Amino acid sequence: MRVLALLDGTLADPDAPQIRVDDLGLMRGDGVFETILVVDGKPRELSPHLDRLERSAAMLDMPVPPRAEFERAVELVIGNWTGGSEFALKLVYTRGVEGGDGTGTGFALGMEIGAKVLKQRAEGLSAVTLDRGIEADLADRAPWLLLGAKSLSYAINMAAIREAERRGAAEVIFTTSSGSVLEGPTSTVILVRGKTLVTPPSKLGILPGTTQYALFRAAERAGWTVLVEPVQTGELYDAEGVFLASSVRKITRVTTLDGKQLPDSAALLTELQGLYESEY
Amino acid sequence: MRVLALLDGTLADPDAPQIRVDDLGLMRGDGVFETILVVDGKPRELSPHLDRLERSAAMLDMPVPPRAEFERAVELVIGNWTGGSEFALKLVYTRGVEGGDGTGTGFALGMEIGAKVLKQRAEGLSAVTLDRGIEADLADRAPWLLLGAKSLSYAINMAAIREAERRGAAEVIFTTSSGSVLEGPTSTVILVRGKTLVTPPSKLGILPGTTQYALFRAAERAGWTVLVEPVQTGELYDAEGVFLASSVRKITRVTTLDGKQLPDSAALLTELQGLYESEY
Repeated sequence: MRVLALLDGTLADPDAPQIRVDDLGLMRGDGVFETILVVDGKPRELSPHLDRLERSAAMLDMPVPPRAEFERAVELVIGNWTGGSEFALKLVYTRGVEGGDGTGTGFALGMEIGAKVLKQRAEGLSAVTLDRGIEADLADRAPWLLLGAKSLSYAINMAAIREAERRGAAEVIFTTSSGSVLEGPTSTVILVRGKTLVTPPSKLGILPGTTQYALFRAAERAGWTVLVEPVQTGELYDAEGVFLASSVRKITRVTTLDGKQLPDSAALLTELQGLYESEY
Repeated sequence: MRVLALLDGTLADPDAPQIRVDDLGLMRGDGVFETILVVDGKPRELSPHLDRLERSAAMLDMPVPPRAEFERAVELVIGNWTGGSEFALKLVYTRGVEGGDGTGTGFALGMEIGAKVLKQRAEGLSAVTLDRGIEADLADRAPWLLLGAKSLSYAINMAAIREAERRGAAEVIFTTSSGSVLEGPTSTVILVRGKTLVTPPSKLGILPGTTQYALFRAAERAGWTVLVEPVQTGELYDAEGVFLASSVRKITRVTTLDGKQLPDSAALLTELQGLYESEY
């Protein structure tokens, strides 16, 4: 099932057209989004997601996404959801129609979580590393490249996943051209070394992860060391576990990387899941 | 005025919603487009534009855009256009709705040409160079980055134009990180040295220009030398003229680059315009 709420506080039909052809979100991929996990009627990390939506919008010089209207739309979708106990809630905010008055187009769309994601959560997934074609200092040097903004211009991210599938894998870990680990197309990379969790820093031009942040918060409280620092591709093979984190996939383990088997991290996953769930 | 035609051969209201919120063109900038100039009821370079639409779709692993349906939509818009003698005709083809049957969403939208473009055609424009953050071999090495595809994921291109405006200019000439000239966010770069026209090669990961190609075709017939070869930023200052070419802007001269006055190329523009118009 799907539930669609608009920023004016009304529900709308997700199977009917709602967007004009000249919306810049469509015409130019010119807008921002977030995907939130809702469990038992509660949106996880809503405030960090709305903060990040604002941050992405600012990177695109867009108006501030109207927070109260988005919060209302979130409540409206949740209140009208009659599907499974967990669902994905997507928030979208575009620059509005071409030549318009500057008012953005926004909505919240509740969707079932796909079977593939549920299977990957349980069984892990295979990943390949792909060159993202950037260097570590580019995000700072060239903010017009919008590195680290969660924009609607995600064609590259989708193309990378198709490339992974062509290589017989399910997911991607992007790296800089010199082999520094970045992120997945729709996830944050986390590795485990002993009692330490590591993720690459967002200053490399990647998205600060909401799920990764929640996990690190819980882990730190439980006595883990958490590090946000550059990671080289080779270090992924030496880790006790490599994980992709995102709102909808939660924490998913990477079982093979570039065709090479990684250490069995099933027990580690159970431990991390426990930490993550303890936050809610 | 605006005229909207759909791929089923019908006209539709461009002021009414036509696109579902879960269309991947909106959700992921996952689709391709072309913008065609129509003059006195005739679409210019229609066939090269449709070829390029197909090429972009192939780069995105999308189904082949249905050519006959697009041609019919183009005719329908032109047949119902009652505005100015020149207009812009945008063709859009997306991957369709999420979880759908793989059928793309497509349309043709006729739109008036903005006053800003008309002014720039007459008076020229100021441009700045901006680092596109890529190197010359990246397009070949990493096809998943979709360099040279005209996709709907154009947020970076729009952000670059806003950066130019912040710097007091109107347009952008993208360069590689090592200073090799690429293209404008929505145009092809052409420079003139004596009786030679030069443009950078598309293997750098840039779009082959339809207007540039038409101009080079005419120029070659008229005895000019035409070169498709790498150009360094410094060479732009040494040229007798620097031009941005695109369907809607035709050939527009760059008057200042990074705040530095370029040689007066008004007479050269008249000559190039004559060559270009001789094609139609």
